[in-house]
Amino acid sequence: MTHITVNYKTVVSFYDTDSMGVAWHGHYVRFLEDARCALLDVIGHDYNDMKASGYAWPVVQLHVKYMKPLIFKQKINIKTTLVEFENCIKVTYLITDADTGDKLSKAETMQMAVHVDSGETCMVSPPAFTDKVRVLLKRTCK
Amino acid sequence: MTHITVNYKTVVSFYDTDSMGVAWHGHYVRFLEDARCALLDVIGHDYNDMKASGYAWPVVQLHVKYMKPLIFKQKINIKTTLVEFENCIKVTYLITDADTGDKLSKAETMQMAVHVDSGETCMVSPPAFTDKVRVLLKRTCK
Amino acid sequence: MTHITVNYKTVVSFYDTDSMGVAWHGHYVRFLEDARCALLDVIGHDYNDMKASGYAWPVVQLHVKYMKPLIFKQKINIKTTLVEFENCIKVTYLITDADTGDKLSKAETMQMAVHVDSGETCMVSPPAFTDKVRVLLKRTCK
Amino acid sequence: MTHITVNYKTVVSFYDTDSMGVAWHGHYVRFLEDARCALLDVIGHDYNDMKASGYAWPVVQLHVKYMKPLIFKQKINIKTTLVEFENCIKVTYLITDADTGDKLSKAETMQMAVHVDSGETCMVSPPAFTDKVRVLLKRTCK
Repeated sequence: MTHITVNYKTVVSFYDTDSMGVAWHGHYVRFLEDARCALLDVIGHDYNDMKASGYAWPVVQLHVKYMKPLIFKQKINIKTTLVEFENCIKVTYLITDADTGDKLSKAETMQMAVHVDSGETCMVSPPAFTDKVRVLLKRTCK
Repeated sequence: MTHITVNYKTVVSFYDTDSMGVAWHGHYVRFLEDARCALLDVIGHDYNDMKASGYAWPVVQLHVKYMKPLIFKQKINIKTTLVEFENCIKVTYLITDADTGDKLSKAETMQMAVHVDSGETCMVSPPAFTDKVRVLLKRTCK
Repeated sequence: MTHITVNYKTVVSFYDTDSMGVAWHGHYVRFLEDARCALLDVIGHDYNDMKASGYAWPVVQLHVKYMKPLIFKQKINIKTTLVEFENCIKVTYLITDADTGDKLSKAETMQMAVHVDSGETCMVSPPAFTDKVRVLLKRTCK
Repeated sequence: MTHITVNYKTVVSFYDTDSMGVAWHGHYVRFLEDARCALLDVIGHDYNDMKASGYAWPVVQLHVKYMKPLIFKQKINIKTTLVEFENCIKVTYLITDADTGDKLSKAETMQMAVHVDSGETCMVSPPAFTDKVRVLLKRTCK
């Protein structure tokens, strides 16, 4: 299977820094969400589409490995890859310095579909999402 | 008129600090909201009650004056006063050091009721809120 | 005097929204800071230059007027104008919908120079900053 | 070995919620940090002591498992346990509903000591920290 990968670029803001002079570790979750939303935009099934299709996709697991600190004004690239989609949305992230390519952080998130009306967690991802992924995979494999 | 005043105590967290070593000015909005929610709890009309009564109360104005920096682990007191309620919710805030009484910051917020179904802003606060305030004012004036 | 104006574009993230489905009012402070940093970049005197010149520039006043709610994925433009620089940095902000031009919010911040070593607040802005502004004003007036 | 455990209680604020009506997953990192700081206070070696001893303790790994959503005003208990201290600070967290005891979330963080002057990561935790832990462990084992 070819994976769907999107590169999302952003920059560290002043408000991201803490009193150690580097980006506070909790703010990475914002970076990851923006990158994941960029990935979902490419797939064509964003949070609004999810809601419209009757499903919420809460994050059920988050894992971040911090390798090197991020500093104010540092330009970063987040390489975001969809590694699982049939039973959940699993995304991996590699944060690098946008200029030097230096590896800064790795992360992974897992989301499960929840049927909004019944409140039940789905063990299989709804077609509204998987169909979009399969169309894109077919296109990128050609 | 006697004003309704509530003192809310909190402490500055590590994640509140920025790379200048003091609480980042934007985080004060969280402190103010927690203090305002404590005031609304005393009145007996919190954000859930607002929603249940069919109204949202978005903040329409925010003003903060920063006098002295807040540092990590500093204990602060936020004296929160309801200064208007009949046409809007106007609250003033005085942030002081909880130990020394030193004045650190002043703020003011204004909220207007919006009828959720129609989306219309109300020029007069709904009775679901004002009735609660009047009951409390009567009690505190005795 | 010609004012220095910079337009900063950004987009509302999912994490900016609160349970009312709109951007939480406190998150605007992040938008304003990013816009102000873009303005300082144009002037050529960013937070790092400030620090290197021996001065911190804490925000001493913040005023935000919320006119219309911001929603997830909304593209916004922040027109950022330096309206005072000789005794303080006063910046005004106009947030509009980047597509429709609809006015959404107005804001103003004031920053005062503080001499880092002495801790004293300066009643006159240091030349390291004002020189940069004057050079830019001269250039933009031609 | 007896583990050092501290229970930290807090409550979900309005600004913690996102447009799904539950606490946004990234805000848990704030809850975890407050709980960890309470643990470090019991040990008697807080972030200020760390800095004074010449070491920073950046978070190098974060893992959160989200089991049930947190809602506005929900009272939560965070049972925080120091599970490793000799080569790193590894802390586990169990978030439960403070009223019902319902399990809501689990998490783990790992921090490594970094010598501030040299910038080198320490493979063994500095005595300034481990001595404090051992004193407390001896006391709690009696």
